Order: sequence, then C-alpha cells, then structure tokens
Amino acid sequence: MQIRDIVMIGAGNLATNLALALSGAGKNIIAVYSRTLANAKTLADQCQAKFTNQIEQLPSTAHLYIIATTDSCIKQLSEKLGDIKGIVVHTSGSIPISVFSDHRKNYGVFYPLMTFSKHSQVSFADIPVCLEASSGRVLIALHLLAKSISKNIVEISSEKRKLLHLSAVFACNFTNVNYSIAEDLLHQNGLSFDLLKPLIIETAHKNVLGNPSENQTGPAYREDYITMHEQMQLLKETPQYKELYELMSKLIITIKHKNDQL
Amino acid sequence: MQIRDIVMIGAGNLATNLALALSGAGKNIIAVYSRTLANAKTLADQCQAKFTNQIEQLPSTAHLYIIATTDSCIKQLSEKLGDIKGIVVHTSGSIPISVFSDHRKNYGVFYPLMTFSKHSQVSFADIPVCLEASSGRVLIALHLLAKSISKNIVEISSEKRKLLHLSAVFACNFTNVNYSIAEDLLHQNGLSFDLLKPLIIETAHKNVLGNPSENQTGPAYREDYITMHEQMQLLKETPQYKELYELMSKLIITIKHKNDQL
Repeated sequence: MQIRDIVMIGAGNLATNLALALSGAGKNIIAVYSRTLANAKTLADQCQAKFTNQIEQLPSTAHLYIIATTDSCIKQLSEKLGDIKGIVVHTSGSIPISVFSDHRKNYGVFYPLMTFSKHSQVSFADIPVCLEASSGRVLIALHLLAKSISKNIVEISSEKRKLLHLSAVFACNFTNVNYSIAEDLLHQNGLSFDLLKPLIIETAHKNVLGNPSENQTGPAYREDYITMHEQMQLLKETPQYKELYELMSKLIITIKHKNDQL
Repeated sequence: MQIRDIVMIGAGNLATNLALALSGAGKNIIAVYSRTLANAKTLADQCQAKFTNQIEQLPSTAHLYIIATTDSCIKQLSEKLGDIKGIVVHTSGSIPISVFSDHRKNYGVFYPLMTFSKHSQVSFADIPVCLEASSGRVLIALHLLAKSISKNIVEISSEKRKLLHLSAVFACNFTNVNYSIAEDLLHQNGLSFDLLKPLIIETAHKNVLGNPSENQTGPAYREDYITMHEQMQLLKETPQYKELYELMSKLIITIKHKNDQL
C-alpha cells in the first residue's frame, strides 16, 4: 500500500515540521486537527489542508493518521477516530506500540529522533526515523513513506525506542539546560552568550566525529580540585547550579576512572 | 612592540593548537618546553623549534613566553624563567593576572575560549581570544598577535574571565558528560551512538542561532511527569545518572517558571 493522503492530528513543533516535510515530498496532507482551532488553521494553511478542532469531523478516507500530540492524548484520540480503514501511527519516543492494540488493526510508530521548533524548519534528510508496525504490510508502507523524507530509517522495538528517547533527553534536553545556565551566568556578569558559540559548535562537532568519553576535558577531568572548589564558590548564590556542578564533576571523574580500567 | 619570536611552555592540547596556529600565521616558535621531553619534541618538530625539558635552557631573547600548562604550575614556571625581557603570559581561564605581579614586569593573559584536542587542529579564526595585560603597551602587542590568528578578540578582567571559564565548563565539559551518558545508555542496549548525531548537531546550531532558554524541549519542559517517572525507572541501575536526571529535570522546570514570570 502506498500512502498518499494523510491526516495530521496535532499542530505542535513535531506535527508542523513533519507535515511540511511530507507535503514537500509530494504527499497530501488532507486535514489537520488541533484542539486549538487557530493552531490547526496555521498548519493547514501551509499544507493546503482542511482543519478542524472536532476529531469526529476528520475525513475517514486517509491512508494514514499521524497522532503527533502529547503522549497522554494518543490513546483517546485514536479511539475517537473510530472506524477508519487507514493506518494510525503516533510519533512518541516513550509510548509503546501496544497503546493501539486493543482497538486498532493497522497501526504503528513513526518517531523522528530530533528536536523541533515551529519557527525553524529542519531538513529531514538525515533525521533517523524510527519505525514499528503492527504487521509486515504496514511496516513496508511506513518505510516507503519515511524514505520519501529521510535516508536514515531504523526499525526499532518499543522497548529500545524508550532507551533511545531517554538518551536523547540527555544529549539534547539536558545539554540545552547547560547552555541556559551558561547564558544566565554570562548575562548576570554583563558578558555576551556569543562568546560561547564557537565552543558550543566545536563541542558538538568533536562528538559527532569522535567518541564522547574520549573527548572529555575540563577541571573535573584533570581532577583540578582547586579550580573546582573555586568554581563552586562562584555558584554559592545559585544552589541548584552548584549542586549540578558537583554532581557533573563527580560523574566526569567516575566515567574517567571506569574508562581507565577498560 | 611587534611579537615575532615565541617560546611555548607546555605541549598539551592547548599549547599544541596555539603553537601551530601562531606558526601558521608566520610567527617563530623558537623553542618548546615540556617536563616530558618526548612531548616537547613532538610539538617542536611541527614548528621547526628547539625543545627542552629544562626551563633554564630556554632562550632568553624571545619576545613572548606562553605558559600553557596546568594552572598549578604557572607561577613556579614564570619564576624559573628568571631575568628575561620578553612578555610572559598564561592561557588559563581561572588564574588571575596577578599571579605574575610580584616577580614580572611585562605580563598578561592570552586565553583562547575553546576545547582543544591534540589529534584535531581547530581553526582559530572564530575563537574568542580573551586578553588582559600589565600595561597598555603589552595589551597592544598581545592584541596584534591575537589578530594574526583570530578575528574575535576581547579584553576581559581576571574576575570576568573566571565567570566565562565557568560558563564554558557548563556549555562544553558538562555537555560532553551528557553525550557520554547517552552513548553509554545506547551501547548498553545494543544501539548505535550514530543515531543521536543529527540531534546533537541540531541542538548546538539551534542555540547558536537562538536563545537557550527559549529552545528548551523535552518531558521535563512539558511537565510530563508520567514519562519522567518512567525514564527514572529505566535509570534505576545507574543511581548517578538517575540523580542527574532528577536534578536536570527540576532545573528545567525552575528555569521555565522563572522565564514565565519575566
């Protein structure tokens, strides 16, 4: 089965980026649902699609229904789709495929491993699209669709997808907190965040070319306790930052010693 | 005063990258010191310089002596340089310029804000070079030198440099730990770290274009306590990772609420 007509359920960051990528690859986004009508309209307008905030009003003829909403709404939205012939997928890293098994026949997971913003469209070409499906037939259909937007397609179980999602939380969301803290420390002291930008890019590139555990540098890695003590003193007014500094430093030393033993 | 002849004291990651950049910009690295003779030789050979592991044997005629060693050795090495005419600088983020004031006349700080590896040479062009000097004359000489390798030169006090260094520890060293943890979680589960590489690059680029506090995404940012609880369960065998997860998540929520009030 070739997927052409698609209904997008959700109009957030992921839904927007995915709908635009699929639309750009020649697929028809025939309708967009969001519980906030204005959001549904904004995305629908970009894909020449219909829009609604009533799930019951969605067309029943699409080949694929993509539920790209908050995790907690997936099951309920799928149930409300009622008796449709098309495949239903969700795009979540954490929700197992079994969320659909008691009420759907053809279903799957279509999880693009990326961080999305509405205001900047990312290129899908290199994004790993992680697939899981209720049958071989559905898997082939999802694979063909994924291939139209990305060259990086992985079949992965619900259990491993959870781990992948967790690792992405460390690599992306927690990294972002470090950037925020760095920005806050600089701004508190009248310094520009721009100063750190070459370092941020180099740190990412270094780890894409090499091995993170071999790229570690800094005071904790050198076990330079004088600098570590002094830096913790600088954080005494921000106890959460200080606590993070201490824990991160301990982790750097633990990982270093573990690798030394290998 | 125009700096041409330079002695490099140290042969580690920073010393290597800086010596090669200066050498590439037409400066003469006339000698390299390292307490490990083989390391001094490796770097000296790349710059057509002499090498030694005896500080007393360094030439006394250089315009500039760059101490690019561990923080704790800077003062002692500078003292051992004895009665030389050239400027003496260190390259540390944390050590104040005053480390030189009781025994030197012309001195300063030449701090390139970057993470260095010996095996990959970085381009200095965009690296912020942070300068501090004992006099206007020394500052001009260091500025001219820095301009030969970078377009990004900043004059910054010892006190602010410490904060800049601390912010770099968060943005680079702590980010690197997150990548290591992500890699460890993936490898433990038979998954490739390659899957995260597009996400790592996008997370860095997003924050170079935008504002970290506005780029935050993920379960903690959405206050999705079900996913957070489940992800902490996945970390129950690695208590340090779990502790970090909990602290990072709390920080994301604190920062989000603080920004909401602005």
